[in-house]
Amino acid sequence: MRYGAIEAGGTKFVCGIGAGPDDLQKTEFPTTMPEQTVERAVAFFRGSGVRAIGIGSFGPVDLRPESSTFGHITSTPKLGWRDFDLAGAIGRAVGVPVAFDTDVNAAALGEARWGAGRGLSDFVYITIGTGIGGGAVVGGRLLHGLVHPEMGHIFLPHDRTRDPFAGVCPYHGDCFEGLAAGPAIQSRWNTPASMLSADHAGWALEANYIALGLANLVTTLSPQRFILGGGVMKQAQLFPLVRAELLRVLNGYVQSPVLLEAIDEYVVPPALEDRAGVLGAIALAAQSYT
Amino acid sequence: MRYGAIEAGGTKFVCGIGAGPDDLQKTEFPTTMPEQTVERAVAFFRGSGVRAIGIGSFGPVDLRPESSTFGHITSTPKLGWRDFDLAGAIGRAVGVPVAFDTDVNAAALGEARWGAGRGLSDFVYITIGTGIGGGAVVGGRLLHGLVHPEMGHIFLPHDRTRDPFAGVCPYHGDCFEGLAAGPAIQSRWNTPASMLSADHAGWALEANYIALGLANLVTTLSPQRFILGGGVMKQAQLFPLVRAELLRVLNGYVQSPVLLEAIDEYVVPPALEDRAGVLGAIALAAQSYT
Repeated sequence: MRYGAIEAGGTKFVCGIGAGPDDLQKTEFPTTMPEQTVERAVAFFRGSGVRAIGIGSFGPVDLRPESSTFGHITSTPKLGWRDFDLAGAIGRAVGVPVAFDTDVNAAALGEARWGAGRGLSDFVYITIGTGIGGGAVVGGRLLHGLVHPEMGHIFLPHDRTRDPFAGVCPYHGDCFEGLAAGPAIQSRWNTPASMLSADHAGWALEANYIALGLANLVTTLSPQRFILGGGVMKQAQLFPLVRAELLRVLNGYVQSPVLLEAIDEYVVPPALEDRAGVLGAIALAAQSYT
Repeated sequence: MRYGAIEAGGTKFVCGIGAGPDDLQKTEFPTTMPEQTVERAVAFFRGSGVRAIGIGSFGPVDLRPESSTFGHITSTPKLGWRDFDLAGAIGRAVGVPVAFDTDVNAAALGEARWGAGRGLSDFVYITIGTGIGGGAVVGGRLLHGLVHPEMGHIFLPHDRTRDPFAGVCPYHGDCFEGLAAGPAIQSRWNTPASMLSADHAGWALEANYIALGLANLVTTLSPQRFILGGGVMKQAQLFPLVRAELLRVLNGYVQSPVLLEAIDEYVVPPALEDRAGVLGAIALAAQSYT
């Protein structure tokens, strides 16, 4: 049984066909206007025999199954995409059932099925790149809630004597995303994150903010593992810094050997690397079809 | 069908017998040494014909069903209670099945069944008193995770020019509980919270910390409602302050009418008042028996 998958991002669409990591065929192209972008995706799936298509989408999106705008992109500032019925457009054009969730929930589901979340009932996937977003598996199921909880806009302690930078979030200034996403790093140091040397002082500061963000998820969701992806986390030196800083800020409060004795396994990169999202969309499609 | 219930607190035990709010009989007594306290509870249930007993306990507790110390109080500093097998002691003495969860999860379950959480799939119950603790219903089920996520130790922005108080949490100093639980209010103003006048400046500060804590739960759990209980929340003037402050700090980020148009229904007191915990323990027992 083969499924279709779309990882719908604000800058590119990644489309896939397959049943899992071993037979995945994929293609990608830039995100332009909605009709044109959908047409390229539809052309990829046409004649492929997929039984269902899973979409993990950039947002905000409407995920309420009872809503008349389920499957729509909602209040995005992205030109042309506001109120666009992405799930409907794909489903009507290809003529198969469509399963729809956020990009980060899809990535979490991909890791749950084939990656670093296998066998876990509770874990969090976070991407730190041009923004910060999170998806969570809670009690074996994807977390949804009232609206998708994003996780990028957590408020954190911000020591302005150490870091006078005001933050770049248009809503909150110095929330997690405002302090620690790629644009914040670039703005604070006048250098793209990818150009900062591995021993730059900015990484210790970055690790501090990431650790505070994770600590707030530990005390609210109590995951068995964190999977950290996204462009900023390609800086491999961040992982040991974040692990040490997480233990330091929690200061012995969480008395679990999963943290205290196995921190290297508690905070890990995505096992599926850049394929977590598209494989998660395959898993979404398979779930909806079965 | 009648069930037994224990709300096991660090200062008192509340025991109940019944099937719900309409027929609940209850008694309470101080929490002394474990054997003596358990004997008083057992005497209350003896001959009552209860089919199962639910316990909502102070913690930390071991909630992992597969653990050899499931149902135990674990690393508490409370004299005599460390490593005490509370669920086992009750179950053996009364001879019925025992369901066991945290005090805050029991209160959340009580509100889910008979109170302000009825009909909701996702909500958070928080008690703000001598400590801060939270229980959550996620996707219609109680949240557990790796260890119970407590929610009291969320890190918050702390503006030391506005509030130079260092916080009283022994682990973190100025986390949510360290800044906003009853002992923090008492220590900051040298006056018990219950003695501060309703127009004291401390309430605006308190509302700010509570709102920041709720905002961090909005962005991680996305609840449909908050239910705020505990001694500090008996100050009824806090509710309008917290609601206004929550909208102010979120600053339009969460575009849901549930917040924007119905904030009075979004942050509410427990409908069951002080009976949420013991009624939740009744519900725990009923769930385990059916």
